[in-house]
Amino acid sequence: MPEQTVRWVGGLDGRMEIIDQTLLPTEFTIVALDAVEKVWEAIKVLRVRGAPAIGVAAAMGVVVGIRNASDDEADVLDRVEKTAEYLATSRPTAVNLFWALDRMKRVAGKHRGEGGAAIKQTLLAEAKAVRDEDARMCRQIGDAGQHLITEGCGVLTHCNAGGLATAEYGTALAPMYRAHELGRRFRVYADETRPLLQGARLTMWELGQAGIDCTLICDNMAAVVMREKKVDLVIVGADRIAANGDAANKIGTYGVAVLARHHGIPFYVAAPSSTFDLSLDSGDAIPIEERGADEITHGFGRQTAPDGCQVYSPAFDVTPASLVAGILTERGLIEKPTRERVVEALGPPQDVTP
Amino acid sequence: MPEQTVRWVGGLDGRMEIIDQTLLPTEFTIVALDAVEKVWEAIKVLRVRGAPAIGVAAAMGVVVGIRNASDDEADVLDRVEKTAEYLATSRPTAVNLFWALDRMKRVAGKHRGEGGAAIKQTLLAEAKAVRDEDARMCRQIGDAGQHLITEGCGVLTHCNAGGLATAEYGTALAPMYRAHELGRRFRVYADETRPLLQGARLTMWELGQAGIDCTLICDNMAAVVMREKKVDLVIVGADRIAANGDAANKIGTYGVAVLARHHGIPFYVAAPSSTFDLSLDSGDAIPIEERGADEITHGFGRQTAPDGCQVYSPAFDVTPASLVAGILTERGLIEKPTRERVVEALGPPQDVTP
Repeated sequence: MPEQTVRWVGGLDGRMEIIDQTLLPTEFTIVALDAVEKVWEAIKVLRVRGAPAIGVAAAMGVVVGIRNASDDEADVLDRVEKTAEYLATSRPTAVNLFWALDRMKRVAGKHRGEGGAAIKQTLLAEAKAVRDEDARMCRQIGDAGQHLITEGCGVLTHCNAGGLATAEYGTALAPMYRAHELGRRFRVYADETRPLLQGARLTMWELGQAGIDCTLICDNMAAVVMREKKVDLVIVGADRIAANGDAANKIGTYGVAVLARHHGIPFYVAAPSSTFDLSLDSGDAIPIEERGADEITHGFGRQTAPDGCQVYSPAFDVTPASLVAGILTERGLIEKPTRERVVEALGPPQDVTP
Repeated sequence: MPEQTVRWVGGLDGRMEIIDQTLLPTEFTIVALDAVEKVWEAIKVLRVRGAPAIGVAAAMGVVVGIRNASDDEADVLDRVEKTAEYLATSRPTAVNLFWALDRMKRVAGKHRGEGGAAIKQTLLAEAKAVRDEDARMCRQIGDAGQHLITEGCGVLTHCNAGGLATAEYGTALAPMYRAHELGRRFRVYADETRPLLQGARLTMWELGQAGIDCTLICDNMAAVVMREKKVDLVIVGADRIAANGDAANKIGTYGVAVLARHHGIPFYVAAPSSTFDLSLDSGDAIPIEERGADEITHGFGRQTAPDGCQVYSPAFDVTPASLVAGILTERGLIEKPTRERVVEALGPPQDVTP
């Protein structure tokens, strides 16, 4: 695994650091976020991205916001509220952002009466716990899926569900990192993932850093790579999974699933169990955000389509469970997911990182 | 139809003009090519592109090269040879380039003895005939396919097999232009077509110019557009078709064909009958050019992948005939193409534009 995307170095007098993902793949820069405004900006402009990584950044951002408060308890608790309120405005559609901020507020409230200094220490420990829990979950996903990455195999992935998007290891990439640690050799094909090219910019970067054999293709080359038998399986991440196993993920994922089915290649989804939204009967209930035209028409710093042309740009798509060979979670592999198998695998609801 | 891509205005003292496709879609500029070096450069740097359009440009380029010769016949014939030899070096892999140059040389040879002035006129007429024949063939492809574009339907295309690539009308776009002329309303979805974005830059431009309702999507959105029932059929062009109906076309075409099959959407190929190479038993015999990494990693003026990363970039792919609902040629529609149906439809070999 390359360096951690978001980390806290030292104690309360230490520092929060992130890999600035907006500079990748051409520049690898670690920046210290020593003011809550910098944390806000980093989340806003996607220096930190990926749902779990945003949650970690938000939790650590609360610590950045309170550590210079006086040790007066009322002052600390007031700063927790204000910092959380402020950070919540950085990316108002990111579920993990709110989850992490709520968790920090709840912990602060629970420790009321122990004094400002103690609460600060508790919140730092909690922020580190948010990171460590996500890292552990990702490793468990990797353990659940590493057996799929056999010696000499080829695996295709789409977008970036890697270490850069999580505390470390990632979700879709976790089985690959684990297999690599176990000494297995294999090759990865990474879809560049238009319009924002997370595959080209981020997946290629982090797999390359880890020394894993990876090859970049355009999204429209996935079919040929499959036909040429270069790929034995597909693993992708997920943003939201319905109770029946239908999975929403970055646009283009559904097409890859259809192509995999046509070529008899198993298609896996990797995500923490908190990605399941059991209130959703099927993928039809998952709302799909539409993005602006500019990402497609002016994507590479140059205008590549006529002025004012019509564009359709859904940000995500839904892959029906019928096309999914299995869902890898930190609790293991749900093979050929159905409503029954999902409920059985997830067991009773737990308080896990979303 | 928008303006002709390549045209000759007036007589021998007139001029050869092209739409400079390297400036599209942001600038529409018609440039006069008044020296054979300019014709060479225009073909070389893709100001003119598309197999049929290159053939037309080469034929007209021969006229540009000879018209200022003296009327001495030997001088004219010598200039024909030298001009053809020179233009052949502009794009040495373009079959239509050689075909057109050979045709011009053959015609010049046939008229030996008629005098230099007459041969010049004959060659100008021949160059115009090359253009007109291609335009007629494209219109015939349009006539053969216009019934597929029904009122209110949605059609998806990939890359640019349009008027910009041919004398006019194009191949894949010809049925759409004909249906538009017949007053039918329909919508087109254009894949942007990575890496070189011919769909975004050229198809969107020319359909927009013609007033046809068109929407740009990234290649990886085609599956969702099909799933959402926005598309009723697919029409694409072809670079080479084997005797059994397997068709090579721009990379990404095969994936679109697989997606169309999965969604029960008919997939058509449109190409002049000269695109068939009956010496090829199947698509397996079609060699596939591999392109350089830079088109993917530095596509539009910006580096979007790590330095030196591995890239796989086939320029074309082959769609098996089993996924093709029909092949539209100037001789009509070959439904569910098989070796027998191809031979039956093409009839005895004829001297047609390649």
